[in-house]
Amino acid sequence: DERLKHDGEFMVDGMIFGMPEARVFEEDYDGPPVVGETMTALPHLAPLTHEGNKTHEVRLDTFAQKIEVANGKTFNAWTFGGTVPGPTLHVREGDRVVFTMKNRSDEMVSVTEPVPGGSPFFSQLNENNYLKTEPAVSPMPHSMDFHSGTVAADDKWRTIPPGQSIEFEWVANYPGVFMYHCGTPSVLMHTAMGQYGAVVVSPKEGYDTDDQVDREYVIVQSEYYLRKHGDEYRYDHTAAMNRNPSQVVFNGHVNALNSEPLRANAGERVRLYLMNAGPNDTSSFHVIGAIFDRVWYEGNRENEWRGMQTVLLGASNSAVVEFIVPEEGSYKLVDHEFADAERGAAGTLIAGPR
Amino acid sequence: DERLKHDGEFMVDGMIFGMPEARVFEEDYDGPPVVGETMTALPHLAPLTHEGNKTHEVRLDTFAQKIEVANGKTFNAWTFGGTVPGPTLHVREGDRVVFTMKNRSDEMVSVTEPVPGGSPFFSQLNENNYLKTEPAVSPMPHSMDFHSGTVAADDKWRTIPPGQSIEFEWVANYPGVFMYHCGTPSVLMHTAMGQYGAVVVSPKEGYDTDDQVDREYVIVQSEYYLRKHGDEYRYDHTAAMNRNPSQVVFNGHVNALNSEPLRANAGERVRLYLMNAGPNDTSSFHVIGAIFDRVWYEGNRENEWRGMQTVLLGASNSAVVEFIVPEEGSYKLVDHEFADAERGAAGTLIAGPR
Amino acid sequence: DERLKHDGEFMVDGMIFGMPEARVFEEDYDGPPVVGETMTALPHLAPLTHEGNKTHEVRLDTFAQKIEVANGKTFNAWTFGGTVPGPTLHVREGDRVVFTMKNRSDEMVSVTEPVPGGSPFFSQLNENNYLKTEPAVSPMPHSMDFHSGTVAADDKWRTIPPGQSIEFEWVANYPGVFMYHCGTPSVLMHTAMGQYGAVVVSPKEGYDTDDQVDREYVIVQSEYYLRKHGDEYRYDHTAAMNRNPSQVVFNGHVNALNSEPLRANAGERVRLYLMNAGPNDTSSFHVIGAIFDRVWYEGNRENEWRGMQTVLLGASNSAVVEFIVPEEGSYKLVDHEFADAERGAAGTLIAGPR
Ligand SMILES: [Cu+2]
Ligand SMILES: [Cu+2]
Ligand SMILES: [Cu+2]
Ligand SMILES: [Cu+2]
Ligand SMILES: [Cu+2]
Ligand SMILES: [Cu+2]
Ligand code: NA
Ligand code: NA
Ligand code: NA
Ligand code: NA
Ligand code: NA
Ligand code: NA
Ligand SMILES: [Zn+2]
Ligand SMILES: [Zn+2]
Ligand SMILES: [Zn+2]
Ligand SMILES: [Zn+2]
Ligand SMILES: [Zn+2]
Ligand SMILES: [Zn+2]
Ligand SMILES: [Zn+2]
Ligand SMILES: [Zn+2]
Ligand SMILES: [Zn+2]
Repeated sequence: DERLKHDGEFMVDGMIFGMPEARVFEEDYDGPPVVGETMTALPHLAPLTHEGNKTHEVRLDTFAQKIEVANGKTFNAWTFGGTVPGPTLHVREGDRVVFTMKNRSDEMVSVTEPVPGGSPFFSQLNENNYLKTEPAVSPMPHSMDFHSGTVAADDKWRTIPPGQSIEFEWVANYPGVFMYHCGTPSVLMHTAMGQYGAVVVSPKEGYDTDDQVDREYVIVQSEYYLRKHGDEYRYDHTAAMNRNPSQVVFNGHVNALNSEPLRANAGERVRLYLMNAGPNDTSSFHVIGAIFDRVWYEGNRENEWRGMQTVLLGASNSAVVEFIVPEEGSYKLVDHEFADAERGAAGTLIAGPR
Repeated sequence: DERLKHDGEFMVDGMIFGMPEARVFEEDYDGPPVVGETMTALPHLAPLTHEGNKTHEVRLDTFAQKIEVANGKTFNAWTFGGTVPGPTLHVREGDRVVFTMKNRSDEMVSVTEPVPGGSPFFSQLNENNYLKTEPAVSPMPHSMDFHSGTVAADDKWRTIPPGQSIEFEWVANYPGVFMYHCGTPSVLMHTAMGQYGAVVVSPKEGYDTDDQVDREYVIVQSEYYLRKHGDEYRYDHTAAMNRNPSQVVFNGHVNALNSEPLRANAGERVRLYLMNAGPNDTSSFHVIGAIFDRVWYEGNRENEWRGMQTVLLGASNSAVVEFIVPEEGSYKLVDHEFADAERGAAGTLIAGPR
Repeated sequence: DERLKHDGEFMVDGMIFGMPEARVFEEDYDGPPVVGETMTALPHLAPLTHEGNKTHEVRLDTFAQKIEVANGKTFNAWTFGGTVPGPTLHVREGDRVVFTMKNRSDEMVSVTEPVPGGSPFFSQLNENNYLKTEPAVSPMPHSMDFHSGTVAADDKWRTIPPGQSIEFEWVANYPGVFMYHCGTPSVLMHTAMGQYGAVVVSPKEGYDTDDQVDREYVIVQSEYYLRKHGDEYRYDHTAAMNRNPSQVVFNGHVNALNSEPLRANAGERVRLYLMNAGPNDTSSFHVIGAIFDRVWYEGNRENEWRGMQTVLLGASNSAVVEFIVPEEGSYKLVDHEFADAERGAAGTLIAGPR
């Protein structure tokens, strides 16, 4: 089969396994930290313009960044690509990803300047930099674990020190919405520090409603565990171990979806790609005033439920949900675990006239 | 289509959207606070006697009420209709609800006297007033949010001050078991204070087992966050934010389903309409000695699972579950998260002979 | 029907209900505390060698045992069969179990010596006694509640004092993976003390993938709530009520699946029988580097989902999950609620070459 690209690859049920060994190396790279046509800033999702399958060359460097998580509350996050959550990668079921990451945690890396010829991520972020990202330095070993990849974790997800790069491949064998994150111990700490994001793998056959969807957005829920130190905020491991978040947020900031609400019109079908990144807690996701016409758990067409008021997601669970916008007005998105909504897990969708 | 009743309404996939604007007004009303033939006290569910669809004129006023939540533990709750949870509304998929609510939180309203010609709620409550309701006053703005309604939340679910009334409509576009609650900030506080209940929207086609069901009951799980102040109990917002409930209950009282157990006979099929109102926690609902033959998540026929020992519900998730009563005896209903069961999330079903 | 064995039994939808009354008695028994050909030590599952249905005579005595839960951390557990979790029972849908339990909590009972002609449990435990079990005494009333049985809980699951025995029957009416546990109040305490395990009821028709499965393992997740007292650890009820576990473990020990990893080869299909015993918490079960090709919630064929990164299980929920081992290497199994993974909910699968 021409889909097998390297010695050792094999197929099971049309899926490809047995990827070549990861390569750890040093490179003299100071280009854009995010490379890939389908790498976008939240809540955007890149359209897929290719037919069938293709190979995506993707770069997502890891480095520290000072970000805001709530009004006036900033901390030095560990990031992929400079934002929390990192960019969303969009591929199609069966696509291959050749992935490169440089650990640039010992460098000051800026992401707010538009990069010519770069990924859509930069211009999207430049338009609405609600995290107010600023370069920072925090040298630290890191790694990358894509839940969308089926590979040996001890090889591909291996930890690399500052200054080193890793390259590996994976095939998107399963459609869905998948988490990616740093897998370096303490994984609780590395994810809580900001190292996570979403991969959307669109099913080969599409979803049944693809023709009817008017809008689509990506929403990642996660918890921060921060404590004031002087006039900055720092990660609090005890709070993380005790599951006492300081903020619970959509798209990384308490106001991400309030200062810049999602948009739609009455009567339209809105699709949300939801990821609950945790690192600890469940989400009982609900849109006030709407009912989910379709819910595909983990984004898989086979896992369809209908007519749901609320979708329960475990830590690193996802769903694709759709609803009809009932009428002009304003709709809140919340984690219906209200203690979490009060900590920031709330957003807004503004609906225009029909 | 004759189902469209007002200018601006429109259909999508046979469902009706675009309801007329809510009307806020003052009325000189001191009649029964619960009006509607299919408004019942828990664990009752009213039979639906109409064929096809109809319009239901429903009133559910909000006002304070002193209630008991455990032996000798009372507090001044904020309620819909005087009980916690409020009455259960039963309609059919496609029915229209014309809803009125007066904010009577500044009045002493009594619910224990049977009201001639009123809703079944009052006589049912009179027969078994396990909450020991007594009138109380606690002037406060409130609102009503029906998860069963698909409308603009900023219009229909708007907050009204004491002395005002609101009227709006919604169509039961989706079948299922839905939460209703006050949506006024802090929503955590308003729901924890007692403002929630359930709407059952029976599917047009019914459930496959409708002919075999011998008994049906409605159970709403929820958490209280109370702390002793002198000789009464008061809401503790810190405990609610920290997810440390003082009681976790079925139908509003630690003994609701123990002092007055559910009844059935060996060999019968029992259906439970379950709602986990939260406001924060999941429920791992289980009946000791039984297995759920059918589970319809959110009460939707399309979301059917079989043979389950335990059903996990997020905050504001629901399910319709059925089991065969194995033999004469006593069965406990619990949240199998045992710390919650120990706080009161336990009830009893007594089974008679075959 | 010849499947009905006693007066009073009756069938509903091919399932058998109305079991004879439990018998409580005294016996002069000091034989092996685990009897049954299909009673195994975790992570083993006994093969079913019988065609159709049969009656299993099973004994599982309850008694105290000193066990290790983490390196150097021991406590006097209450157990079924001497281990935490207790042995896994394997039967087929429709099989009948005649069950006997003696409360030997007032005796020193040893389980580490192989017993001639006994259940596979003893030799498996002897091969890998990672709990380092030692006899202990802790006289206490106990009971047995099988979630796989559909019976009157107040009869079959009744509490017996030390020195007494109970015998009752149940029919495995529903296929799946079920919890068993002591149901004596405080159930939170009795389960947290170690009294739980799993029953696997294989579906009559099998699972669609039975022919393709290369390996199968049983994994039970649970929480300990322990506190240091001098140089031993004891159960801490306050911690259990507050949902603050000291350890969260697979198969009873922080290192159960690390010191003795699960084994498979690249390209193989691995099936896991998962049970989340709680007693309080959810599990967001994930295998790092793999995606679940099949998920059968509660182990029921009808509840199939596909392509899942993570499976959310409530307290006493279960699942049968399968994944293709992508390539040679090492894979971690975790509760992706990372505070729980850090407390020990992590294991290892080592994959050999293809
Ligand atoms: Cu890292
Ligand atoms: Cu709500
Ligand atoms: Cu209110
Ligand atoms: Cu149980
Ligand atoms: Cu016990
Ligand atoms: Cu992960
Ligand atoms: Na927010
Ligand atoms: Na949460
Ligand atoms: Na709970
Ligand atoms: Na109770
Ligand atoms: Na957990
Ligand atoms: Na472990
Ligand atoms: Zn290649
Ligand atoms: Zn990871
Ligand atoms: Zn939440
Ligand atoms: Zn009207
Ligand atoms: Zn609300
Ligand atoms: Zn619970
Ligand atoms: Zn018999
Ligand atoms: Zn039990
Ligand atoms: Zn967990």
